[in-house]
Amino acid sequence: MATIVTCSAGGAAQTASARCFVSYLKRLPHSADLYSSACRRPPVRRLSASPGAAWFSPGSGVRFMSRGTASKCATGFTRRRAWVFTGAVAAAAAAAAAFAANTGHFLRAEMASRVPSVAEEEEGDILDRCKRFMSPPVSDVRVLQERKGEMCTRMEMLIMQTQAEFCRALEEADGGTFKVDRWERKEGGGGISCVLQDGKVFEKAGVNVSVVFGNLTEEAAKQMRSRGKVLKGKDGKLPFCAMGVSSVIHPKNPHIPTVHFNYRYFEIEEEDGSKQWWFGGGTDLTPIYVNKEDAFHFHNTLKKACDKHHPQYYPDFKKWCDNYFYIRHRGETRGIGGIFFDDLDSPTQEDAFSFVKSCARTVVPCYLPIVYKHLNDSFTAEEKDWQQVRRGRYVEFNLVYDRGVKFGLATPGSRIESILMSLPLTARWEYMHEPTKSSPEAEMLEVLKNPKEWV
Amino acid sequence: MATIVTCSAGGAAQTASARCFVSYLKRLPHSADLYSSACRRPPVRRLSASPGAAWFSPGSGVRFMSRGTASKCATGFTRRRAWVFTGAVAAAAAAAAAFAANTGHFLRAEMASRVPSVAEEEEGDILDRCKRFMSPPVSDVRVLQERKGEMCTRMEMLIMQTQAEFCRALEEADGGTFKVDRWERKEGGGGISCVLQDGKVFEKAGVNVSVVFGNLTEEAAKQMRSRGKVLKGKDGKLPFCAMGVSSVIHPKNPHIPTVHFNYRYFEIEEEDGSKQWWFGGGTDLTPIYVNKEDAFHFHNTLKKACDKHHPQYYPDFKKWCDNYFYIRHRGETRGIGGIFFDDLDSPTQEDAFSFVKSCARTVVPCYLPIVYKHLNDSFTAEEKDWQQVRRGRYVEFNLVYDRGVKFGLATPGSRIESILMSLPLTARWEYMHEPTKSSPEAEMLEVLKNPKEWV
Repeated sequence: MATIVTCSAGGAAQTASARCFVSYLKRLPHSADLYSSACRRPPVRRLSASPGAAWFSPGSGVRFMSRGTASKCATGFTRRRAWVFTGAVAAAAAAAAAFAANTGHFLRAEMASRVPSVAEEEEGDILDRCKRFMSPPVSDVRVLQERKGEMCTRMEMLIMQTQAEFCRALEEADGGTFKVDRWERKEGGGGISCVLQDGKVFEKAGVNVSVVFGNLTEEAAKQMRSRGKVLKGKDGKLPFCAMGVSSVIHPKNPHIPTVHFNYRYFEIEEEDGSKQWWFGGGTDLTPIYVNKEDAFHFHNTLKKACDKHHPQYYPDFKKWCDNYFYIRHRGETRGIGGIFFDDLDSPTQEDAFSFVKSCARTVVPCYLPIVYKHLNDSFTAEEKDWQQVRRGRYVEFNLVYDRGVKFGLATPGSRIESILMSLPLTARWEYMHEPTKSSPEAEMLEVLKNPKEWV
Repeated sequence: MATIVTCSAGGAAQTASARCFVSYLKRLPHSADLYSSACRRPPVRRLSASPGAAWFSPGSGVRFMSRGTASKCATGFTRRRAWVFTGAVAAAAAAAAAFAANTGHFLRAEMASRVPSVAEEEEGDILDRCKRFMSPPVSDVRVLQERKGEMCTRMEMLIMQTQAEFCRALEEADGGTFKVDRWERKEGGGGISCVLQDGKVFEKAGVNVSVVFGNLTEEAAKQMRSRGKVLKGKDGKLPFCAMGVSSVIHPKNPHIPTVHFNYRYFEIEEEDGSKQWWFGGGTDLTPIYVNKEDAFHFHNTLKKACDKHHPQYYPDFKKWCDNYFYIRHRGETRGIGGIFFDDLDSPTQEDAFSFVKSCARTVVPCYLPIVYKHLNDSFTAEEKDWQQVRRGRYVEFNLVYDRGVKFGLATPGSRIESILMSLPLTARWEYMHEPTKSSPEAEMLEVLKNPKEWV
C-alpha cells in the first residue's frame, strides 16, 4: 500500500502541490512503485492558469444527454470545450494535496476555510451557473430565474452544482466520462442520473439529482418525514416539492473506500397555505480496510463543516449515522459512518440551508484526497475477495434497510435504474465467511461491530 | 450448447442408460465436444449392483458435522463408506437418462410413476433411515421413534430424507462434497445446513433443514399464515412447531438454470388443545436462457406429481408461483416458475402430506436431468455476464420480497448464514442493462415479463 508522500516539487507552494499531485498521478501507470516518485518529477504538461483547471478533463464542458429526453431540454445551452470551476473544487484540489503532502493536520484547517461563503456561491446569473451543470436543471431555467430567491430554486441550484463538481472531480481521477441520463417523471419533475461504470478507478460511480413535485396524501406526507408529523391538506391532498442529490461511488481498488452522500429538501403546503419544510442528508464512508488516517481526515473534514454551524451537529449527526447505517441482521454497521440527519427545520431556513450547503461543498474535500492517496495501491486477490464480500453487505443494507431505496421501490413510477445505481457492479456472498483472527479483515469487522470515534 | 444425445451403449436398457449417462459424464473433461461421444463408449468403471449407486460419490456416506454443535449430537451414528438409496434417487437416475437419451416425452411418464408410494417411504426403522441423512435429525432419534406416527415426526423424516437425496445427487454431478453445519436454536430446535460452494458445476448449492419449536404470540401466529387466520392461545401464547427443507442451487454454467424448492409444515396448538396445521412449499426454476425443452420437462414433472392428487393443483399452484416470484419494481418474474402453495390444510392431513411428499420426491427428477444435459455446454463471457445480471435480480427478489427471508432477517436469533445461503456467490448490477433486440437475453426477458404455460 502506498504511504503518504511528501510532495515538494516546485517549491512546495500549496497550489503548486495540488497541481503536481493531481496532474501527475493521472498520467502514471497504476503502480504503487511509481506512486511515490510522481511528485518528485518536474511537470511535463503546462498547468492551467486557473488553480482549479487541473481537476477537469479537457472535454468536460457542458454536455447534453446521450439518451432519454435530453434533446427536449437543451435550449439555451452551448457546448464548451473547457471551463473552470472556482470555489469548492479548487479548495478540494488544494485539500487533496494538503492531505497527501502532509501527515499532520495543520493544512486541513486551511482546507475547511476555503469552502466559499453562501454569498459567493449564489453570485452570478442563473443561466451562467447552469451552463456548468452536467445537464440543464430539471426546472425550466426561466422559472429558476423568476424565482431566484425561493428556497426550491436555491436548493435545486445547489444540488445541480454539487453533482457537477463531484462528477468532474471523479472524471479527473478516473480518466473516464460520466454517462448523463435525463429523465422525466410523469407526475411532475424528473432527474439527472450520471453514471461512470467500469472505469479505470471506479467500478461504478453514480451521482443522481431528482426534483419531483405533485400532491401527497396525508398518510404519505407523514411517512416522508422520519418523525412523522401530522400535516393537514386541502381535501386530504398536500402539494409538495422534494429534491435531492445522492451518490454512491464504488472504486475498484479495495484500498479506496466507497463513499455515499445525499442532501435533500422537502417542502409541503398545508391547507392554510403555510409551508412545512425540512432538510436531510449526510455523507458516510465504507472502507474495505481500516485506515485510521483516512478515517480521521474524512470525519474531521465533516466535523469542521458542522462546527461552523453548531457544536452539537457533528457529535449528534455522527451518532445518527452509526445508528442509521446499521445492518441489524449482521450486527455490524455498513461502514465507518460520517454524518446523517433528517427533519432539519431549525433554527431558521436560512441557517439550515447554509449548513446543508457547507455539507454539500465538503463532499469533494472529504473523499477525493483519499482516492488520490490510494490510487496506485497494489492489492491481492484475497483483498479483492474481501472487498466483494463487503460489497455484498452493502447490497444487503441498501435492499433491506435503506429508507430511500425502500420508498423508491415501493413507489409506482419511480426510476428504478436511478434508485438501484447505488448497488455495486459486482458483489459476493460466501457462506460462513469469517476473517482469520487478527487479520486486517478481522480488524475491519471489529470496527464495524463497535463504531469508533475518529476525531 | 450440447444437444440431447441418444445413449445406446450396452443395449440401451433403461437402467443401463442411466448408469451410462451418469457415470461417464462425470469422468469427462468439461467440453461440449466430448459430451456427445460420452455415452457411446463402453463403461470403464465397474458399475454398482444397485441401480442407484452411481448417483453417489464414493465417500458420501453418513458424515458428521465439521463445525458447530455437531459432535454433541453424533450418538447412535457410525461412519459408513458407501451406502445406497433406493427409491426416488434411482428413479431420478433413470429419469436423467430418459430425458437425455430421448427427445420425446414417452419416458417421462415412466419417471413420474417411479416415485415410491407413501407406504414404501415410511417403511423401515427410524434409526436405519436416519443413518442415511446428512446429519442426525434435529429431534432426538429416540423421540422420533416414540412418536413415529405423529405428523411432526413423519415430516421431519421427509425433509431430512429430501435433503440427503438432493445433496447426494448434486455431489454426484459436481464431484464436490457438501459442508454440513448443524446448529441449535436457543429458543428450541435447530437445523442442518448443507452447502457446496465454488464446486466444479455449482457456484453455490445450499440445502437447509430447520425444525423449530416454542411459543408464538397471537400476532406472530397470524403473520406466519399467509391468509392470516386468528388463533387463540393460552394467555396469548401458542405452542408451535415449524419445520421445512429449503434449497437454492446456483450453477456456474449459464446454461444450467438455478433451482429453488422449499417444503414446510406448521403446527400450532390453540387454547383448547386443538391443533391447527398446514403445509406450504413449491419448486421453481430460474434459467438464464430460455430452453423450452427444459421448461417442459420441469413443469411437466411437477404437473404429473400434482395431477396424482388433484387436477387443479398444478394450474392453481403454477399461477400462485408466477404471482409470488414477481420482482414488482422490475415488472418481471424471478424465473419461469413451477409451483408454489401455502396454507394447505385440506382435504385431510394425510392427503396433504401425501401431496407434499410427492412434490419433495420430484425435486431430483425435475432438476438433475437438466443439470446433466447442460453439464458440458460451452459458454461465452457475454453469457456469463448475463447470468451475473440475472443473479443480481435474484438477490433483489430474495432481499426485497421473499417472505421467508424477510421473516428470518427480522426474527432475533435466526441463523443468518442459513437464511442468506440462498444468495449467489457472485452477482452483478449494470446500470441500464438492456439486452439487444431479438437476442437470447431479450427472449429470456420477454418470458419473464409475460409468464408462459409450458405444458
